[in-house]
Amino acid sequence: MVDIAGAGRTGRPTLAVVGATGAVGAVMLQILSQHADVWGDIRLIASPRSAGRKLTVRGEEVEVVALTEEAFDGVDVAMFDVPDEVSAQWAPVAAAKGVVVVDNSGAFRMDPDVPLVVPEVNPHAVRMRPRGIVANPNCTTLSMIVALGALHAEFGLRELVVSSYQAVSGAGRDGVETLRRQLSLVAGTELGTNPGDVRRAVGDDTGPFPEPVALNVVPWAGSLRDDGWSSEEMKVRDESRKILGLPQLPVAVTCVRVPVITTHSLTVHARFEGEVTVEGAREILATAPGVVLFDNPAAGEFPTPADVVGTDPTWVGRVRRALDDPTALELFVCGDNLRKGAALNTAQIAELVAAEFA
Amino acid sequence: MVDIAGAGRTGRPTLAVVGATGAVGAVMLQILSQHADVWGDIRLIASPRSAGRKLTVRGEEVEVVALTEEAFDGVDVAMFDVPDEVSAQWAPVAAAKGVVVVDNSGAFRMDPDVPLVVPEVNPHAVRMRPRGIVANPNCTTLSMIVALGALHAEFGLRELVVSSYQAVSGAGRDGVETLRRQLSLVAGTELGTNPGDVRRAVGDDTGPFPEPVALNVVPWAGSLRDDGWSSEEMKVRDESRKILGLPQLPVAVTCVRVPVITTHSLTVHARFEGEVTVEGAREILATAPGVVLFDNPAAGEFPTPADVVGTDPTWVGRVRRALDDPTALELFVCGDNLRKGAALNTAQIAELVAAEFA
Repeated sequence: MVDIAGAGRTGRPTLAVVGATGAVGAVMLQILSQHADVWGDIRLIASPRSAGRKLTVRGEEVEVVALTEEAFDGVDVAMFDVPDEVSAQWAPVAAAKGVVVVDNSGAFRMDPDVPLVVPEVNPHAVRMRPRGIVANPNCTTLSMIVALGALHAEFGLRELVVSSYQAVSGAGRDGVETLRRQLSLVAGTELGTNPGDVRRAVGDDTGPFPEPVALNVVPWAGSLRDDGWSSEEMKVRDESRKILGLPQLPVAVTCVRVPVITTHSLTVHARFEGEVTVEGAREILATAPGVVLFDNPAAGEFPTPADVVGTDPTWVGRVRRALDDPTALELFVCGDNLRKGAALNTAQIAELVAAEFA
Repeated sequence: MVDIAGAGRTGRPTLAVVGATGAVGAVMLQILSQHADVWGDIRLIASPRSAGRKLTVRGEEVEVVALTEEAFDGVDVAMFDVPDEVSAQWAPVAAAKGVVVVDNSGAFRMDPDVPLVVPEVNPHAVRMRPRGIVANPNCTTLSMIVALGALHAEFGLRELVVSSYQAVSGAGRDGVETLRRQLSLVAGTELGTNPGDVRRAVGDDTGPFPEPVALNVVPWAGSLRDDGWSSEEMKVRDESRKILGLPQLPVAVTCVRVPVITTHSLTVHARFEGEVTVEGAREILATAPGVVLFDNPAAGEFPTPADVVGTDPTWVGRVRRALDDPTALELFVCGDNLRKGAALNTAQIAELVAAEFA
């Protein structure tokens, strides 16, 4: 028997959340409980070892069911937040049953038959989904792309140079727990002033990271790709190009992990087709949906992860024109990597699809 | 009476260390004790409230004397590490007495009559000092410039886009103590996952920083300059141009503070006159004096502050050619901001001057 929440919401599409018990899944359930309710039933799906657990969504307890083909019976839209290989196997299974899959893994993002959608930037792309699958971008791309999309629409983007300051929750619960453990080892000590002292204190307890992340920054995220690039860096480049519809855009990226729990930050050097002004950029950012302009250094106002965590928008500060290039802007951007960076954008895409059922 | 160490080293120049009791001063004394000894007497000078303290240099106890005009009697070379306004007042006083001043403040760096010297990059500039003052660059500039100087000499630099990951000791002992206090507040907690929770825990205890720095990154260093730029960002641009002898070089910079005790890191996007190869860049970096190439991501090798702290060289990793521009390289660079970033480079400049006395 499949436990279903929301009986009585007839006529509305049925949603499945696949990967409901993960770090992003937990935020998804929060968001589903907070957003205007467009869904009929909501079914929670996870790995067999999580089946039977009860989770709360929209104020109701729902029992988690195991991921099987039958779990998709009667489902209209499914949001997947599971590892790449699980999505690669199961998203086509669901799609073959007529379910529209919104997938937050890396499995389909660069598939030319799968749109990669950010509702504030390219909402119409959601309808062009020959495989029945819509992809959600990587959290690092998502933490900046809404702001860049707004500026691109006005000024025409020509080049991006991006550096990330990525939070540990981008590596999941294990990333968060690893930083917490390491912080307990270094707090109240004099560590961080002698060669290798942090490494010796942390030992092999580096969790999902290649180096200690407490009192450190680590210029690596993801796996090794060609020519020394990391998979995370390639994602930011390739996904930005696809979302913005600029397949030739030059994008240079370096991804760096920092000891922050949640919220990715990025510095952005963006060059445009012609001359830009700070005033023009600020006007666009101040009115763009999904963007908060928080930029008054004289009053100590610029976004930091400590203030942005738990919020939905992309926060932008430190807006400056390049001193030596009137066509370029410098920005500092923060976005909650679990909300807009993952669960929120996935939910927004699913809501775009739900509107088709109206 | 002035207490002087090293009596008997006659014929060698006399050195004064002004600001001997500060964070950088402590590292200066270490370095003077470790380097080949080119100095005769070494005199330690500080503010009147520190006069009478005894510090160890070259294995000998030396009493600190107060900063007065007489303190420079018989001194040949003086290394200053004091606030800008103290240097602005006292460096000309010492220079008027014939002392060659090597100054680590921001007071003279952009003075056209004061050379700004990095011994690996522009050693000859040290002799052109009409005011008798030589300036030491800012720690952020110094953390990358040796590597960039080597690449520039071969390839010809055309543009820089730089983002910093700056350690708290760049803001002095107060910066370090502030992070230590904040770490004790956040360790063992669940802070960092809800909006404003770190800020509430830290309260007003943000020390020299405008925001909490534990579990956070803060896109601000220095004071507000024109058009939203920070003084630290302007220093990196202006000083890089002066040291490299490229007064028109486009340099875009965003400076960000991170919860690291010591060692500044930077991501660098560097565009050159013509096509570059990773192999060529690696060969230059592997043999450049003062540079360590540590770049093998397949083996988990890239520099991080935890390993670089306490060492002298500029460490370079993540060397990649831009995917969309064969004339550009991406680098991740780390340098100890208290050693090469301050005390070491100052000592190296002073040693260049000492050689003139031989």
